[in-house]
Amino acid sequence: MTTAATQAQDCPLCTGAGGLPVWNGRWMRLIRAEEALHPATYRLVWQTHAAEFTDLDPLQRGVCMDAVALVEREMRTALGAHKINLASLGNVVPHLHWHLVARWNRDAHWPQPVWAPPQREADVARLDALRAALPALDARLRTALRARFAPPPEAAEGSDHS
Amino acid sequence: MTTAATQAQDCPLCTGAGGLPVWNGRWMRLIRAEEALHPATYRLVWQTHAAEFTDLDPLQRGVCMDAVALVEREMRTALGAHKINLASLGNVVPHLHWHLVARWNRDAHWPQPVWAPPQREADVARLDALRAALPALDARLRTALRARFAPPPEAAEGSDHS
Repeated sequence: MTTAATQAQDCPLCTGAGGLPVWNGRWMRLIRAEEALHPATYRLVWQTHAAEFTDLDPLQRGVCMDAVALVEREMRTALGAHKINLASLGNVVPHLHWHLVARWNRDAHWPQPVWAPPQREADVARLDALRAALPALDARLRTALRARFAPPPEAAEGSDHS
Repeated sequence: MTTAATQAQDCPLCTGAGGLPVWNGRWMRLIRAEEALHPATYRLVWQTHAAEFTDLDPLQRGVCMDAVALVEREMRTALGAHKINLASLGNVVPHLHWHLVARWNRDAHWPQPVWAPPQREADVARLDALRAALPALDARLRTALRARFAPPPEAAEGSDHS
């Protein structure tokens, strides 16, 4: 986490990781959300407590979307999904975070968004196989994000949190 | 629209505007979606048939998100919404388009995404008032987008479509 002045005490994304930590950078971190029906769900979380995309300045927005694109590209390469869904909503937790969700044309909600009612039973065997493949993707994402972005200041002399 | 080679004949966003036209640019256009429960819904549509955000090159992605930010900022200024939701999904129509949806804490789906089941009855009087205010926002958006981005090539010598 970064300086206390830019964090909100009652915000779960200021006080906790928000999911399985994958990478922790100066401006952003990546977590895997471990959603039961959509295990290949990552969230790119802005480190400070900004609510809206336009609360970031243009340079920060560029860095943020560069990271979104990096994660999307690694997901596409590793998963062979039919679609990657991107969303920044923040109605419940008004702290900027981008959802990246890999979608398949037989997943529980296809073709609806993952927030809509399910369209069919989940394929448990497929979900288990997908879940088993995700640690390798986490590692690829961590390597790619470390290579591209600086670690947080407190980790600059050592390793990052992951 | 742009060159035929980059359009798909069976894609509704290649063959039609996709909503009420607000602005038409070289790389993108903005439409208002006229969603019954969320009238302040805009869609920024990439002009050529790209499915994923990372099908755009880095410069195109920068231009795209610069426009998303411009629209978000104008929506925030004009509407006083509690949140702006951003999403690029494309499961049904795999042609890159960003949803920008103004949300209020008593709207029909709050705090859920607009694709979730409704949480309460819509406030018809509020929706009517909001709908009446949108043409003025359309005009502001058109002016701001024209000032920032080039018109499409066929309109470069004259006015754009709006």
